[in-house]
Amino acid sequence: EDPLVIAGESFGSRLIMGTGGAPSLLGLETALRASGTELTTVALRRVHTGSEGSIWDLLRHNGIRALPNTAGCFSANEAILTAKLAREACETNWVKLEVIADDTSLLPDPIELVSAARTLVDDGFVVLPYTNDDPILARKLADVGCSAIMPLGSPIGTGLGILNPRNIEAIVAGAPVPVVLDAGIGTASDAAFAMELGCDAVLLATSVTRAADPARMARAMRQAIEAGRDAHLAGRIPRREQALASSPTEGRANLDLAL
Amino acid sequence: EDPLVIAGESFGSRLIMGTGGAPSLLGLETALRASGTELTTVALRRVHTGSEGSIWDLLRHNGIRALPNTAGCFSANEAILTAKLAREACETNWVKLEVIADDTSLLPDPIELVSAARTLVDDGFVVLPYTNDDPILARKLADVGCSAIMPLGSPIGTGLGILNPRNIEAIVAGAPVPVVLDAGIGTASDAAFAMELGCDAVLLATSVTRAADPARMARAMRQAIEAGRDAHLAGRIPRREQALASSPTEGRANLDLAL
Amino acid sequence: EDPLVIAGESFGSRLIMGTGGAPSLLGLETALRASGTELTTVALRRVHTGSEGSIWDLLRHNGIRALPNTAGCFSANEAILTAKLAREACETNWVKLEVIADDTSLLPDPIELVSAARTLVDDGFVVLPYTNDDPILARKLADVGCSAIMPLGSPIGTGLGILNPRNIEAIVAGAPVPVVLDAGIGTASDAAFAMELGCDAVLLATSVTRAADPARMARAMRQAIEAGRDAHLAGRIPRREQALASSPTEGRANLDLAL
Amino acid sequence: EDPLVIAGESFGSRLIMGTGGAPSLLGLETALRASGTELTTVALRRVHTGSEGSIWDLLRHNGIRALPNTAGCFSANEAILTAKLAREACETNWVKLEVIADDTSLLPDPIELVSAARTLVDDGFVVLPYTNDDPILARKLADVGCSAIMPLGSPIGTGLGILNPRNIEAIVAGAPVPVVLDAGIGTASDAAFAMELGCDAVLLATSVTRAADPARMARAMRQAIEAGRDAHLAGRIPRREQALASSPTEGRANLDLAL
Repeated sequence: EDPLVIAGESFGSRLIMGTGGAPSLLGLETALRASGTELTTVALRRVHTGSEGSIWDLLRHNGIRALPNTAGCFSANEAILTAKLAREACETNWVKLEVIADDTSLLPDPIELVSAARTLVDDGFVVLPYTNDDPILARKLADVGCSAIMPLGSPIGTGLGILNPRNIEAIVAGAPVPVVLDAGIGTASDAAFAMELGCDAVLLATSVTRAADPARMARAMRQAIEAGRDAHLAGRIPRREQALASSPTEGRANLDLAL
Repeated sequence: EDPLVIAGESFGSRLIMGTGGAPSLLGLETALRASGTELTTVALRRVHTGSEGSIWDLLRHNGIRALPNTAGCFSANEAILTAKLAREACETNWVKLEVIADDTSLLPDPIELVSAARTLVDDGFVVLPYTNDDPILARKLADVGCSAIMPLGSPIGTGLGILNPRNIEAIVAGAPVPVVLDAGIGTASDAAFAMELGCDAVLLATSVTRAADPARMARAMRQAIEAGRDAHLAGRIPRREQALASSPTEGRANLDLAL
Repeated sequence: EDPLVIAGESFGSRLIMGTGGAPSLLGLETALRASGTELTTVALRRVHTGSEGSIWDLLRHNGIRALPNTAGCFSANEAILTAKLAREACETNWVKLEVIADDTSLLPDPIELVSAARTLVDDGFVVLPYTNDDPILARKLADVGCSAIMPLGSPIGTGLGILNPRNIEAIVAGAPVPVVLDAGIGTASDAAFAMELGCDAVLLATSVTRAADPARMARAMRQAIEAGRDAHLAGRIPRREQALASSPTEGRANLDLAL
Repeated sequence: EDPLVIAGESFGSRLIMGTGGAPSLLGLETALRASGTELTTVALRRVHTGSEGSIWDLLRHNGIRALPNTAGCFSANEAILTAKLAREACETNWVKLEVIADDTSLLPDPIELVSAARTLVDDGFVVLPYTNDDPILARKLADVGCSAIMPLGSPIGTGLGILNPRNIEAIVAGAPVPVVLDAGIGTASDAAFAMELGCDAVLLATSVTRAADPARMARAMRQAIEAGRDAHLAGRIPRREQALASSPTEGRANLDLAL
């Protein structure tokens, strides 16, 4: 009834999962099921591994759409090549575009990112770029034809939540395509908060796969995202500097009347 | 399986609702049902009103336990008298104890509060006191025999969320009885956050009854509290100052191997 | 020209220093001089020690007024006794009143504090109580006749700054006597912020005495407090959600005119 | 003794002023003098105006170095042209480079900015670019040869302070040239905080020129920046989660010894 729509495709879940950090395929499967996700990123090199069955098989078996990413790419050219290989290997023209500036910060390279996005869109890809929280860069990514904008809340794996909510709100306000909060989620309230800021979905991996109880955290994230979406649509009360009695007269005086 | 237990009574829901601010009994009923609450506060003077059916009837009809409060009381004596009248009127020895310092801040009077709590406990009441976020006052309330501690996140009706999370954590760490975050919740992520800090339940009214769509917000709060509880129990990832790749090797290099 | 006035006494400096944590008397003296303080707390037991000269002598020699405290007292009675001993030993009826709830949190005991304050005021003391950040407790302390209110920003020695600025603002708004931010200051911007919130002075010890370079940090605190006071009086610009060009037309167009 | 050095030039003051928002030249002059600034930005079109004497004259008369900016430029080409005109008009190869993405957000255009910076550096300019708070973009600006990095704390004119301190710290950690916090300063504690994060200087305009008392706020900023610099160098105490007595034994017990 309230689907997430990206590039014309509808998803019942607004939680996009990543697969990194999972200690085992079995644990990953349990967590993915608990999360209710319908779209999950996979790194190209993990698509085909023979050992214990592949992530690719796992996703297909659970009816989850695979979203190849370009994790580990440091330049536009590298990301473009990886995307093309993934398109053939995974038989999808969707790609989560990552162009990382360095191995330490894992922050996106803004200039290489826009360049890669432009090329991939021109080549027929549905491009979902992982970006920083700069509203101007987000606009440029939309302008070159990306199908969603995926800003970070904080650096990958930090679990620091959303460090600059105003930037996320500004990205949401200006984006003609869905906004997916990607990176930085640490716990359920972070995910709910992202949705309350107006994000259309949340992408997370580590906060679930590295939690002490991944399946329970996956369930928490699923509910938190639904809660945040509902809260966003329900129209929250304004923040007030002064107290306001929930009912100015309730319980006061007139005790005789009450009995 | 994970009930909230207060004074030996079990509740399946960890959302305690207030009734203030509701525009109509019908709207209130819809919101209460959506919230899943099993325990709801009522001000004494609102218990018996004939006009459109009473809140009392509404709660009974929906199987929700009524928790009388002493809203609007400014002294220990006034609160004690109100609690006793409520005990007779509502046939329960449970009371949400409020002793407010003034009409403007609606903040608790710490000294009158402890005094009233002591007297009511000695008189056989199950006392659930609304208090500020001072860990020392919380301890005193537990010491005099209160059955839960209900600290504010921020002043009543402000919707500012939890202004001092460290104080709430300190209250939780020291409390031998359940801690219920009471007052200040503005939206779903605030409620989830309270649970993540270790609170056992959340009490809220205005954020639901005065939302644009109270039933939807009630549903959001219900899910957020479940999500926050799960996240608390699931063991979140630590906050890190530096980025951490969800999988250091995924997608990197070896593109030939991947195909 | 803009003195701090407490109980009719004027001070040119708005920085009140504590002496705890200083590694040596010499280091303490250097820091106190750099701070420009005119009022410094001393614990009673440190007043008279013969070994390397006393803090008492140090303060007198530098023209700094000594403010005895009741550090380490856990009850009203203990604090009252300590205050009386200090009055005789130090020949002053001023006292920084501390009644601590426990050794771990070092948080004030709100009920014992008000009780001790009332007794000491009635006995002719000028009482400066160290309190939590509850605006209601602050009001009670003013009501019993305290000459200043000294709320914490965060627990003693944590250096976490001001965790709940709204509470400090509320205390300032309601206080008929000077408000001194006491405890929690970690660095210079914390002290400036306290003054910007409307505090009349700042009391700090650890942040200077345990800094790597105490004298330099003392100088920083001195300037920060003057800066914060000036900023408070200068009337800051409002916070805006939207950007505002400092001059909408500057530099734009008309390049021909410019040359 | 601790000068700010940019491109080999030393400045005794770490406060760089802007001139926008000043209601009059006289008021501006008073504020500039109170600020102690030695470097002040001017928009090209304001350099030569005949009416009431020019800003150019004002700066020269007060011994303040003028730093032309490219305010109001929306593309690399426009900024480059403006910089060249300013070089001739102002007889300086220094330029504060601004390339704004739009009139509403006043945020920098990251791609045009790097492009303009590269060209201007190659043309012999000393380029001081106004940038967002992205550490990767900051690195690129340093890589193309900029002589300082000037990240925003929050959007121009908002007075919201530093919204993402971690980004500023990351920029400082990686920058081989001075970092100047530019935009978003609202009050003195914001400026002190910037310096504590490791910035080498602060650039501000509106917070002084639009304060109720600009000269007093200018003085506050001057002191706050000196305080923040000192605090940064003095080595602050660590933030602690638990309280720590400034002196565990002071004033406790041994009251007999004390007398």
